[in-house]
Formats: sequence, C-alpha cells, structure tokens
Amino acid sequence: MKSELKMNGAESLVRTLVHNKVDVCFSNPGTSEMHFVGALDKVTGIRCVLGLFEGVITGAADGYFRMSGKPASTLLHLGPGLANGLASIHNAKKANSGMVNIIGQHTLQHLELESPLTSDIEAIAKPMSHWVKTSKKSEELSKDGAEAIENAKKAPGQISSLILPADTAWGEGGDIVKAKDSTYRTKVDKETIQNIAKFLSNGKHSTLLLGGGALTVEATLLAGKISRKTGCGIITEAANARLSRGAGRLDMLRIPGAGVVDRALAMLDKAGQLVLVGSKPPVAFFGYPDKPSLLYREDTPIMSLADVDEDILSALTDLAVELGAINESPKFLAEYKRPEVPNGNITKEKLALAIGNKLPENAIVVDESVTTGRDFFPATSGAPPHDWLNNRGGAIGYGMPVAIGAAVACPDRKVVLLEGDGSGMYTVQSLWTMARENLDITILIFANRTYEILRGELTNVGVQNPGPRAVDMLTLDRPYLDWVHIAKGMGVEAIKVNDCKKLLDALDIGIKKNGPFLIEIIF
Amino acid sequence: MKSELKMNGAESLVRTLVHNKVDVCFSNPGTSEMHFVGALDKVTGIRCVLGLFEGVITGAADGYFRMSGKPASTLLHLGPGLANGLASIHNAKKANSGMVNIIGQHTLQHLELESPLTSDIEAIAKPMSHWVKTSKKSEELSKDGAEAIENAKKAPGQISSLILPADTAWGEGGDIVKAKDSTYRTKVDKETIQNIAKFLSNGKHSTLLLGGGALTVEATLLAGKISRKTGCGIITEAANARLSRGAGRLDMLRIPGAGVVDRALAMLDKAGQLVLVGSKPPVAFFGYPDKPSLLYREDTPIMSLADVDEDILSALTDLAVELGAINESPKFLAEYKRPEVPNGNITKEKLALAIGNKLPENAIVVDESVTTGRDFFPATSGAPPHDWLNNRGGAIGYGMPVAIGAAVACPDRKVVLLEGDGSGMYTVQSLWTMARENLDITILIFANRTYEILRGELTNVGVQNPGPRAVDMLTLDRPYLDWVHIAKGMGVEAIKVNDCKKLLDALDIGIKKNGPFLIEIIF
Repeated sequence: MKSELKMNGAESLVRTLVHNKVDVCFSNPGTSEMHFVGALDKVTGIRCVLGLFEGVITGAADGYFRMSGKPASTLLHLGPGLANGLASIHNAKKANSGMVNIIGQHTLQHLELESPLTSDIEAIAKPMSHWVKTSKKSEELSKDGAEAIENAKKAPGQISSLILPADTAWGEGGDIVKAKDSTYRTKVDKETIQNIAKFLSNGKHSTLLLGGGALTVEATLLAGKISRKTGCGIITEAANARLSRGAGRLDMLRIPGAGVVDRALAMLDKAGQLVLVGSKPPVAFFGYPDKPSLLYREDTPIMSLADVDEDILSALTDLAVELGAINESPKFLAEYKRPEVPNGNITKEKLALAIGNKLPENAIVVDESVTTGRDFFPATSGAPPHDWLNNRGGAIGYGMPVAIGAAVACPDRKVVLLEGDGSGMYTVQSLWTMARENLDITILIFANRTYEILRGELTNVGVQNPGPRAVDMLTLDRPYLDWVHIAKGMGVEAIKVNDCKKLLDALDIGIKKNGPFLIEIIF
Repeated sequence: MKSELKMNGAESLVRTLVHNKVDVCFSNPGTSEMHFVGALDKVTGIRCVLGLFEGVITGAADGYFRMSGKPASTLLHLGPGLANGLASIHNAKKANSGMVNIIGQHTLQHLELESPLTSDIEAIAKPMSHWVKTSKKSEELSKDGAEAIENAKKAPGQISSLILPADTAWGEGGDIVKAKDSTYRTKVDKETIQNIAKFLSNGKHSTLLLGGGALTVEATLLAGKISRKTGCGIITEAANARLSRGAGRLDMLRIPGAGVVDRALAMLDKAGQLVLVGSKPPVAFFGYPDKPSLLYREDTPIMSLADVDEDILSALTDLAVELGAINESPKFLAEYKRPEVPNGNITKEKLALAIGNKLPENAIVVDESVTTGRDFFPATSGAPPHDWLNNRGGAIGYGMPVAIGAAVACPDRKVVLLEGDGSGMYTVQSLWTMARENLDITILIFANRTYEILRGELTNVGVQNPGPRAVDMLTLDRPYLDWVHIAKGMGVEAIKVNDCKKLLDALDIGIKKNGPFLIEIIF
C-alpha cells in the first residue's frame, strides 16, 4: 500500500523557515529552484519579494536584518546566481547582518556531467559565508535548514549558505525542525568593567568609539551619561550598520571614511585614549603610498569594553553604574532644530540643509552618497529621530538593495535613500522591485556625473595632472545618465531638479507619497 | 646619486600587456587600481572601455575573445568587483574564452587590518579561473603579467586572474616581458584518424557533433565533405561560442537546449553513432525528476576525433583525406534564401522570419533569446554569411556584454543582439557602454514580460497547476519594464514595436544606423 502523500524536501524547508520566523524570501529563482517555488506557493506565512538581479536580493536581506534584527532568506540560482549576489553579501557580512541564502544546485548525479551551469558552489560561497552546507538528503533538508537559521542568528548576525540540490528538494522531506536558540550574547566580566572605569578616570582625555549594538538609542544614551560623568568624547566608526540619531538622541560624528585619511587622522589625533564599544581599532579604507594605514598613533592607549558579538547594552549599563553615571543626564543630546532653508543653485552644503529641513520623523536614511554626503551629519543632527545606515563593506551598489530590505522590514516608516549616480548603477534593477512592492522609498540621486571619489584618489595615490585618458575613465558624462528615464522604465515615478526650490518641492512630493519616488539632483 | 626615474609596477604591466598585443582593457576601476589607471593614461596602444558594472566588463572580454581570438584584459576593483564579474567569467570559461583579469588588492600590509573592502580574492577567483596569482613584488609584476597572458592564450583559451596589490603597482617596476607562446595545439595522431574513418565506414548511421574550433567556415566545410562521402549527419552542440553559418556555409541544427529535453532526446535518437569533434557527449541542461541527464542512449557508440584544445582543423583535414573525401563538394550547404516577409501581429515564428529577412551580410548574432529564439535557425540559415554566438555557461545576462566585446573586436561588422527582457536586465548597464563607445549594435528585446522558460520548467519538474504566488514569481509585468525609457536613460536610441510592419521598419533603421539602436518588441 502507498503511504499517504508526504511533503517534499522543499516544502519541509519552507515550513521550517516559517516555523522559525524566517518569513521573508528575497528571490530570483531558476529551474533548479522550481520545487522551492512550488513550496512557496503552497505554504502561507512567507512573503516573497522578487528581484531582477541577485545583488538586489542579497542586499535587500542585509537591509531587512538591519531594521528587523532577524534574518531573511534569499533564493539564488546555482553558482552564477550566488556569484551575482556576493558583493552585497560581502557588505552584509561586514555589517554583521544575518541571512539564510538558499542556493539551488543540480541533482548530485547531474553534477558529475559538467553541464553548462555546473560550478563549485561551496567554493564560491565560502569566502563570503560563515556557514556553508550542501544538503544531500531530502529527509534531512529541514534539519539542515534549521542549522542554517541557527547560524544566521548567531550574534551579531552571520551569513549562512545552504546549497540545495534539485533532488534534495523534490525527494521526500522530513519533519519541520525548530532551530536552536543561538542569539545569546556573552556578558562582559566585572573585571573588564572595573578596568575600563579606571581607564576613563585616569585624568587623560578619552573617547568612546561606538559601533554595532552600541548605536541603539538606549546604548548611546548610556554612553552620553558616561561622557557627562567622565568628560570623554564620543564618536562612531566611519560606517555604521544602523545608527540611531536626530533630535533627543546623541549627536556624534563619524570618523571620516574613504578618500579623506587626513581628516580621519586629525579627528583621532584629538581623541586621546580610545575605548572601543562594539567597534574595532580604526583603520584607513585604503593604503596609500605616503599615509599610515592605522588612523591612530601606535602609542595610543586603547581598551575594549565589549566586542560586537557581546552584550554591549549590559556592558554600558554596568560601566555607567561602576562610574556612578547611571543617573546623569546624557551629554551631547541633540535639540530639535531644522537648518536654514537653502535657495538658489544646489551645492553639497545646500543639499545637507535641504535634507535636514525635510527629513520626516522616524525616517530610515540609507546613505550611499559617497563624496556628496561626507558632511551631511551636522545639518541633520537636529532633525526628528531617525536611523542612519551606511555601507560597512565598501562594495558599491549597496544603497538601493538595502533600502528595499529596510522598507520591507518597516512598512510604516519612510526610507530616504541618498545615492550617488555612479554607485546607483551597480544595482539599478532595484527600482523595479521598489515599484512592484510599492515600497515607501524616496530616492535622491546625486548626479555629479563622475566617479568623483576616484578623482581625489588619483591625486591621493600620487598621480599628478592626470591626462585625458585617465580622466575619461572616471567620468560618467559621456553620455549623461538620465535617471528620470531609467526610473520610469522600471515603473518608478521620477523628477529632475537643478535648484534648491525645485529640490525642496520634490522632497515634499516624495515624502508625502506612499511609494517609491526618485529625485535626480543635478549639481 | 639617484638613478633615473624608472617606471612603476603598473606601468611595467601595462607595457607588457601592449607588448604582447593584449591591447584592450575593459575596466571598472577603484582606488586600489589608480596607479594602473595612471599607467593606462601614459602608455599608448591600449584601448580602454569603461563599464558601469563588472559583469559588463568580463562579459565584454568574453565576446572580444570569441571574435578576435585573443584575450583582452579587465580591470576590477578588489574582491567585490571580481565577484560582480564572476557570472560572466563563468560563461567565458565554458565558452573557452581567454581573458586576463587584473584585480586590484590592498597593499599587503593594509590587508592585515581587515578594512571594509578586505576579502580573500584568491579564493573568490579560483572557482572560475584556470590560473590565479597575487603579484607580491613590483619588480616581478611584468613577469607575472606575462605569465597571466601565457595562460590566457593556452588553447582553447583560459581565464587568468592576476591580483595586483596597490604597493606592487606603485613600487619600482621591472622590464617589459614577452609572454611565452602557448597557443600550440596538439595534433591528433594518425591511428585515431584511421579508427574514426573505419567507424564512419562501418555501415551504421553516424553523426558528427561539432563544437569549438570545428565551427569555423573551413572546419565546417571539411565536415560537409566528410558527410558527402560517408552519409553522416552533422549537428552542433546546444550552445556554441561562435558558429559560422548562412548562405554558402553549412546548414546545421543545434541540439535543443534548456527546458526542452524531450526534443533533444528525439534528435539524438536519430543521430546513430556519434563522432565528437571539439565537443563533449551531450547532456541535459538540468536534471529532472523523470528524465535522463544523458541525451544519448547509454549504448550509443561514441568516438572523439579531437578535443576542444587540440588541432581540430588538421584532424578534420586528415580525416577527409583518409576517407578520400577531400575533393568532395560539401553536403548541407545553405543556399541564399530570404524567408517570406511576415505581417500582422508578432509571433515567435514571425520574429524568425523578420530576422531572416533583414540580417545583414557578415553580421555577428549574439543570441540570448532564451525561449523566444529556440527555432530561429531554419529561417536564418539562408541569410548572408554570419556568425552566431550562444551562451555556453547558462548564467543569464550574457548577451549585452558579449555584444559589446564583439563590436569592439569587429568595428566593421554589425552586431545583432537577440535579448530576452528578463535576461537583459542582469547586465542592463551595458547600454551605457554601447552609447559611450558608439558600438554598432542593433538590440532586439523580446518583451514577453515573463521568465517564460521557468513557466515551462515548473511543469517539467512536476509542479502542476501552480498557484498565483508561484506564477507571480515568474512574471515581469508588474510593473512593465519599459525598455525605450531604460535605453534612453543610458543614451541609446530606442523604439517600441508591436506589429511586423513596425518591426521590419525598425530593423531597417537599426541596421542602417552606425551605432547602438534598441528595438523593444511587444508580443
């Protein structure tokens, strides 16, 4: 007698994902993933978001983790599909975002035949993943899936890559599996707390360097109390996965990032002793012929309060108690203040003013403004409370996908994407997904029509007076990119502005609209 | 006393590339590649072609090799830049295209600091490369570059990945180095020739399966002579890197490819004994639950005349001599014949007729038409002589970049790109490079507004009556992609057509124009 119809491996995996609250799947499937698609069709409780390029998919999972604190799954088509998603996975890994990548693979028997799409998927996944496994038995797929989830959730967040051969997907599945709880964060011991308290009280000037979990509202307020008590400064790493800021929150500067080593050195020269809180000793983005790679002097006293995977909030609380600072009012609190309204032609400085004027409450700012946005912080620190997300991996094209993920995670919040024209092109297919899902994103494209950062970098590495061939390789104005056309081609409403009045009006439209709106800013 | 100013490593590498006739560089540089850009600026004799995404760059190098027979170089920014280019490198590797990838890396000292863009570039490169090396001494960079070229030129063509730390680029360079000649192809021995001759004369029906170097005009004509003498059939692999065809050349069918296993089985069922000439025993694109992975019966007698890296032309010549076929007139020669002119609404069949009618002499057809173009061969076999390029790696997004490379290699020939709307989006940034370089490419976008191949595949893998969620994941019509807007946004003239008359008129415009022209075909 035939047994009752059981679910196949793919369905056991989808049900395991849903059971463990991994309930969003950013996907770009192919033939080898069709059983998984069939299972997504059958199982309710999982939201599928389609992308037209895999870098969009994996970047969206990054943004989703940053704003929801939990991993999404991605669905990728064999080795090349994973390869297309790798740069965004690199950024996610550096941002400590967890995700569960599900990568289709040929049947194990078919794999030996070297058909066109055959490649060594494990080898492709490994450099960008914390955990990689090929699931070889359909009955164990749900168990492997739970293991992928467990690893993705490990503090502070990890990259899991589960490789799914087609016959593992279509064979008979096992039971739904609950993933082990892996979110535990180690508490910092009392001795470390006491040592840091002494360090901060030794009469020398100190600065807290905040990163990772030290950038939440609660954690930054504790840092502000510690500063009030000890007089220490507070700064953040050059790029933050998610920084809580705005009126009523702490006003901190980031360490200047790529292309401006001298400014970073100058900031850290004044910082004195460093206390790392969820951060690493600061290093330059690139090495240069005549500049140091370390941004601090080698004799700088440095202590670490808590690493990024430890219980940072408890450590800051314990430190504040140890210092007798817990009842202090936090220092560096930003007051609500909109900057002056800019007018006339658009400059970088006026852009900052416009954004500071219009940023709505509870906005999520996804910042890939590269050179244009280096100094956006002062003009926006008094805007209503918001989160500010930067690229920690340096692989350009991060902005649009992360904005998608943030918007999916927080449908009730406005996402404001600050995007360079050069960087925006890497994952331009994102616009279609924004339109398809009607994601609430206002996209600002800074059309300086050049890889401007590279013009500076050519000088920084010692190439003086570059000739026309070098300049041509850094220039995007032949032909102009017309972002209004590009956006319309993918179903996103768009407008071009070239003065402050039009910019401010366009921002009003975008922020009022419930859905994607692109503003191409010519300056 | 200071010695005279010597060239730096980057310049020694650029001069070594030019000296060895690797004189095109498809590039997307970043900070770590700025010395290389500086050297490109200084050294004449190398053409730089900028792309806005690395999959465009590496795919262009693939197309360039297919049409010029020599490797181009690519310039990629660190691990993520290479990662973005990997899918196109996968396709190039499967097409046996040689290329010299130059991948920037941090200075060796900076690498230890785990700055944002740090990754294990060698590990990322290895799965898709034949040769990988990190050049650690500026004085030896030109030697390493020559070794990269030597390996890229090895028959039939290989992927070299040279990793270039910034300090190797800016340190003092060595002398220009001539790469060893590595293009030698092994001759097939006399015994094999005689055995194949006997095999073809054993009274059973045989078919030559041509691939690689067996697809040139000369080689196919020799195959036609052999067929005339022995009565054997001639077919080609499912996807060919470059197939010479059209009026006066051999008329052959390809083995049906992805998604239509049954059709492929039916063709090979009639093929009888197989003689492989630059090809592999045919296997299905994917494995399916109830279908074989091998496209031939296991008891099929198979012999191999020459492997893809051997001297195929000599082997075919020797075989023709051995069989006494060298003076025969080739069988299967196509006569010049344009198909009937289609009219009314557009269908797949009428598309084939339209292309067969308008294809200009000496055209290069880059075919990523996926489902739409499965049956384009019969209607185009009598068109003037042309080359037909297919995707051998199966990673979608191959068409536009390969068209760029073909157009750069053959500026005096018209490139006709047959592109699906789904696949075209993966490397859509290509349009900008086409406009920038005014490449002579007529782009046909088949806007069926679906991943149509996957609809069939859902059934093929046994998912019957897919529900709305599955169908939604295979559909591109929410929102519509408007290719005319997208093209204009990147500087490419474009037109939308929805009947045969407009299509034929648009083809006339595109083919007459000297530069890129996009036709969005709604059907």
